[in-house]
Amino acid sequence: MELNESDIPALARGCAVLGTGGGGDVRVGALAATRAIREHGPVRVVRIQDLADDELIVPLSGIGAPTVSHEMPHGEAEAHRIVEEVEKIFGRRPAAIMSSEIGGSNGVAPVAWAAQLGLPLLDADAMGRAFPEVQMVSMYVKGLPADLVIMADVVGNVTTIRPVDGLWSERIARAVCVAAGSSALMADYVLTAARARGAVIEGTIGRALRIGRHQVLEALQEELGAIRLITGKLTDIERRTEGGFVRGSATIEGTGADRGRGLLLELQNENLVAIEDGEVRAMVPDLIAVVDTETAAAIQTEALRYGQRVTVLAWACDPIWRTARGLEVAGPRAFGYDLEYRPVGAGA
Amino acid sequence: MELNESDIPALARGCAVLGTGGGGDVRVGALAATRAIREHGPVRVVRIQDLADDELIVPLSGIGAPTVSHEMPHGEAEAHRIVEEVEKIFGRRPAAIMSSEIGGSNGVAPVAWAAQLGLPLLDADAMGRAFPEVQMVSMYVKGLPADLVIMADVVGNVTTIRPVDGLWSERIARAVCVAAGSSALMADYVLTAARARGAVIEGTIGRALRIGRHQVLEALQEELGAIRLITGKLTDIERRTEGGFVRGSATIEGTGADRGRGLLLELQNENLVAIEDGEVRAMVPDLIAVVDTETAAAIQTEALRYGQRVTVLAWACDPIWRTARGLEVAGPRAFGYDLEYRPVGAGA
Repeated sequence: MELNESDIPALARGCAVLGTGGGGDVRVGALAATRAIREHGPVRVVRIQDLADDELIVPLSGIGAPTVSHEMPHGEAEAHRIVEEVEKIFGRRPAAIMSSEIGGSNGVAPVAWAAQLGLPLLDADAMGRAFPEVQMVSMYVKGLPADLVIMADVVGNVTTIRPVDGLWSERIARAVCVAAGSSALMADYVLTAARARGAVIEGTIGRALRIGRHQVLEALQEELGAIRLITGKLTDIERRTEGGFVRGSATIEGTGADRGRGLLLELQNENLVAIEDGEVRAMVPDLIAVVDTETAAAIQTEALRYGQRVTVLAWACDPIWRTARGLEVAGPRAFGYDLEYRPVGAGA
Repeated sequence: MELNESDIPALARGCAVLGTGGGGDVRVGALAATRAIREHGPVRVVRIQDLADDELIVPLSGIGAPTVSHEMPHGEAEAHRIVEEVEKIFGRRPAAIMSSEIGGSNGVAPVAWAAQLGLPLLDADAMGRAFPEVQMVSMYVKGLPADLVIMADVVGNVTTIRPVDGLWSERIARAVCVAAGSSALMADYVLTAARARGAVIEGTIGRALRIGRHQVLEALQEELGAIRLITGKLTDIERRTEGGFVRGSATIEGTGADRGRGLLLELQNENLVAIEDGEVRAMVPDLIAVVDTETAAAIQTEALRYGQRVTVLAWACDPIWRTARGLEVAGPRAFGYDLEYRPVGAGA
């Protein structure tokens, strides 16, 4: 597979859906990807089986508050600096880069970095969605030691963290990110193809493209296997930025067939919990997307506005997040909600 | 020269004087040094001319709030982890370690790290005193690019920063330090002997030992070439910890011949400015020490208590700090004081 300029709009739309509100503004990643393809040509997409066992994969993502990364897209220089650091540490050039997070801008921007670096992009990511914290990646859930984080900021600083575990990688990386103006490009783990096998979520670039090609709500819903939580109007939205995170809530009042009902969304970069009449209808790590009812385009957290006509969809996360370890890392309690996880659509 | 267990009390006393209140509790460094010498034997002290041009010197110091490092001395593991990282980056083992900061605990603790690592200690440091920020080192004043900081915390995390300059090294290192519980061991720069020449302050281990052997105020004053700002009683002390720093002030009321006079000290980890009747009598980068009038032992910021009978001494800093660049890096304006630097004792 090859990604051309004409694929970027669909990829961006798909990544917005999978971002469940977060992962950074997809327009930023899409713009960077389009420009980079124009300058450097299309990006080859590879699978793990295309790589030799000891070839290196660098999972990349932007880290920071969406409110900041919105204004500060990561440039070519940061990607090159991270790859240079990888070469210093491992003594060889990586064979591919990977999106750490298929959701949001972080799902699209790797196309730009791959084009700029002249490297292929792996058809995989480490979340199958978006998550706000560094350790919320499939490699960590699978028990690969979180032993290396490399960060590059727009100023030119490069910071390499050898953390004792994933929670410390988040803690230190977040501090470095905030010090660097709440925005940095990050390699979280550097994987050989052998280590990546079974430890990343494969096929998610292709999945985002398929999702993004749907422009009708019903078709999108079917592609996702989603349930419709509500169709209505956004009546209340509250957001604040705290320590590099966006937190807040949104309220949707039902219209049409849903008149008289209401849904509350709890946000922390992503849409985390959907509550109706005091009852939780969907919760992290399952995916919750707010989409424009007319166009089936996802609306990211930062773009939520009073009066928007929206439908809220919810669907199952990758099975890795439903394991005991997955729920420990990114279940409702990891986000401070005292809730027992119940798969979306499982009934009351 | 060799440092034995019996040298540590004098070294610690000298480092307390040169710490101008800061640099961490000397008792912590002294305890670690004594234990390490008992276990590993004496520490050889070398000069730059004893090293080959391409041999590596690792300047080490604890970074953090004195209130924290007081309780968390840095162990052997952190020193070993930093040296391992140096070996990974440079492909060879360092030939010596150096104190980044002769003042306070950071002047004594390197004896422990040298003993634990089985490496000699360079008779030099990078301040000739204590300073609170990472970039306030002679190498930075001399224009060596601040291109490498390695940090190790008590948990086991190792962070390597390749900053664009000294101010970014401070900013990122401080953030990492705060994330790690406001305490970490740090290598700021790694120097070849050739680069160290002229870029470090030589002879400061020997100087601290000579200073620390004086137990009479007049003799100490003569050794330092200090002027006596006041002899009196500590009547007011205010301290608070902010973002890894201790800030505050202390007031000394004159007694005996100084009755009727008063001195205000402004603190930021170190004693920074001494003011009498609205007139600045001494200011950073010159050194200001509060010493016990009876024993001539320096009293560090954290140990200042109401009612102590003290004498405040002030004396000239190393000439490097009086250069235009030195004053830019660590003059009064670098600490937020809108004061024109005037050398101590220069008159009104």
